[in-house]
Amino acid sequence: MRTELCDTLGIDYPIVAFTPSEHVAAAVSRAGGLGVLGCVRFNDAADLDAALDWMDANTGGKPYGVDIVMPSKVPTEGSVGDLSKHIPEEHRAFVERTLRELGVPEKADSDDGAGVLGWLHSVARSHVDVALKHPISLIANALGSPPNDVIEQANGHGVKVAALAGKAEHAVSHVDNGVDIVIAQGYEAGGHTGEIASMVLLPEVVDAVGDRAPVLAAGGIGSGRQVAAALALGATGVWMGSYWLTTSEYLETMRESGTVQEALVAASSSDTVRTRIFSGKPARLLKTRWTESWARPDAPDPLPMPLQNLLVAEAHQRIAAAKDPSVVAMPVGQIVGRMNAVRPVAELMSELVAEYERALDRLDKTR
Amino acid sequence: MRTELCDTLGIDYPIVAFTPSEHVAAAVSRAGGLGVLGCVRFNDAADLDAALDWMDANTGGKPYGVDIVMPSKVPTEGSVGDLSKHIPEEHRAFVERTLRELGVPEKADSDDGAGVLGWLHSVARSHVDVALKHPISLIANALGSPPNDVIEQANGHGVKVAALAGKAEHAVSHVDNGVDIVIAQGYEAGGHTGEIASMVLLPEVVDAVGDRAPVLAAGGIGSGRQVAAALALGATGVWMGSYWLTTSEYLETMRESGTVQEALVAASSSDTVRTRIFSGKPARLLKTRWTESWARPDAPDPLPMPLQNLLVAEAHQRIAAAKDPSVVAMPVGQIVGRMNAVRPVAELMSELVAEYERALDRLDKTR
Repeated sequence: MRTELCDTLGIDYPIVAFTPSEHVAAAVSRAGGLGVLGCVRFNDAADLDAALDWMDANTGGKPYGVDIVMPSKVPTEGSVGDLSKHIPEEHRAFVERTLRELGVPEKADSDDGAGVLGWLHSVARSHVDVALKHPISLIANALGSPPNDVIEQANGHGVKVAALAGKAEHAVSHVDNGVDIVIAQGYEAGGHTGEIASMVLLPEVVDAVGDRAPVLAAGGIGSGRQVAAALALGATGVWMGSYWLTTSEYLETMRESGTVQEALVAASSSDTVRTRIFSGKPARLLKTRWTESWARPDAPDPLPMPLQNLLVAEAHQRIAAAKDPSVVAMPVGQIVGRMNAVRPVAELMSELVAEYERALDRLDKTR
Repeated sequence: MRTELCDTLGIDYPIVAFTPSEHVAAAVSRAGGLGVLGCVRFNDAADLDAALDWMDANTGGKPYGVDIVMPSKVPTEGSVGDLSKHIPEEHRAFVERTLRELGVPEKADSDDGAGVLGWLHSVARSHVDVALKHPISLIANALGSPPNDVIEQANGHGVKVAALAGKAEHAVSHVDNGVDIVIAQGYEAGGHTGEIASMVLLPEVVDAVGDRAPVLAAGGIGSGRQVAAALALGATGVWMGSYWLTTSEYLETMRESGTVQEALVAASSSDTVRTRIFSGKPARLLKTRWTESWARPDAPDPLPMPLQNLLVAEAHQRIAAAKDPSVVAMPVGQIVGRMNAVRPVAELMSELVAEYERALDRLDKTR
């Protein structure tokens, strides 16, 4: 399992792992893939710095990357307080009533009220500044092309820039903007996602981008057969996110996530829903009593981004503290149906490679 | 491009083409695939008999099949008149008002008012009876397992039975019911479709069914790369429907469909919508001014099956007569973005095979 991407990024297998856990990212890099650490959860850049220090000491010199969340145009940035004024009382009341009905306890006094600030442009900028002080190989941006100066800065450090796209025209625009690697993310993916499924999207993006940039396949990948399918469709590698949420390493970083893992391991591929309730934009989440509450006829329509995010930020903290697998608020793709046990990264990686080889053997027999 | 399915069905390539056109079906069979004629449009079994006579004379002795629409349990069958009483006046008024707004002319006196009766169990039974008098190789059922006696009757004639499934558990139940071939149909497919995309669904179905039945991949397939991906995921063949709608042969049977082809050729992969407006159950259609009208806030919720079908049957006839590409009511999958010209079946078939070989060559280089 070797493509040009392996040479470009200095890795053994064209498997790129997006994860909020530095333990998972390091384990993937050690196993021959590229671990990419999601930065959005680091409200304080100093904490990201410390996590990257840890990775530098624990990747055995293997390449790794980071993932930021940054729009290409700098938005007007209100304070959380200013923005909150635009949240209708009906929505606040619905969230409060729903949490009560779901048996989610009140917020404990000890909780940090800040929520996730990585969505703010200024915070994402600080992530880039910190990351570029480390020997990273890749900056991926979840919101498409980052601003031009970020691309220039990254390339100046010899760092490649990747951007997610859910449509072929977005992919072309990313490449026009100077992005080095396109991540084509299909409908089946977790988190923010479009409507075109990987089977259709991937060859479209590959054809639209041509030889101007390598394309990674994202969405629905959690087995060697699926890696083979992605490469058959024209990708030069895969971008996997959900799949690492049920690794043993994940819990080392995300210590409170045992309940989430329990819910994920039990879920089938039918147990996700694409909804605007997480952020205001369509994102695929695990289907739980929380998401089902928002699908009821009496539920209000989700607010636009960033208001919906502010509305549910405290609810997400309370839900996390409640430790009830039936009321989890978690982005995950349809591949959750294949995540049926908590296992170490190295085992999953070697299984991906071995199954890939078997899939190619099978294809050879069709000649 | 050769799998066990080729031996099972006596074909050269594991490409099965579902189409309402006997001209397309015959051309696919002649080109080495298996043409499968959709029977639902034949209100009178004698017309199906004539179409199959034509196929017997025009497939050059190559195998072909038929597709029926039959629930496994016989439903209580009201007359169209009885059922119509349950359609709310609000819905009738909305359809009438919408067609007027869209500039769709009134119904001409000469129009046949019967609509499509192939959805009725008695009519589907007559299709089976007629088809089994011809040298067919396959009966596929769009609604899953057909009734037991139909499977026994087909197998008694040496005819294989295939059934569509959008979830792994449905696939297993089909095999338990005696179905010979499972068609795993992903979210990206045209017509009635589930929510799990092909990339995730296909290996799930293959694993669930094991070696009890071959699995065909349906949904999102219109290139050799996609056939290779489907086979990499574990399918032993592909089931393609939408892709043949823009063939030159299609127009030979469906003489009034020039407007539909024009609309399909112009559409991108973003121009479909999964909606209940066609039949009452979720089905993927070409996104047009007609489907958009039903997405407006003032539109009523679609009725359950079979009432929605009855509600829009006359509207579909008026829309077809209007010959306006922006007001087409047509099931099609996301692969429509790859259907950009009207071309002969033989050309598409040889392109599929050649691109498949190139995809395998590319995969070989990753070893």
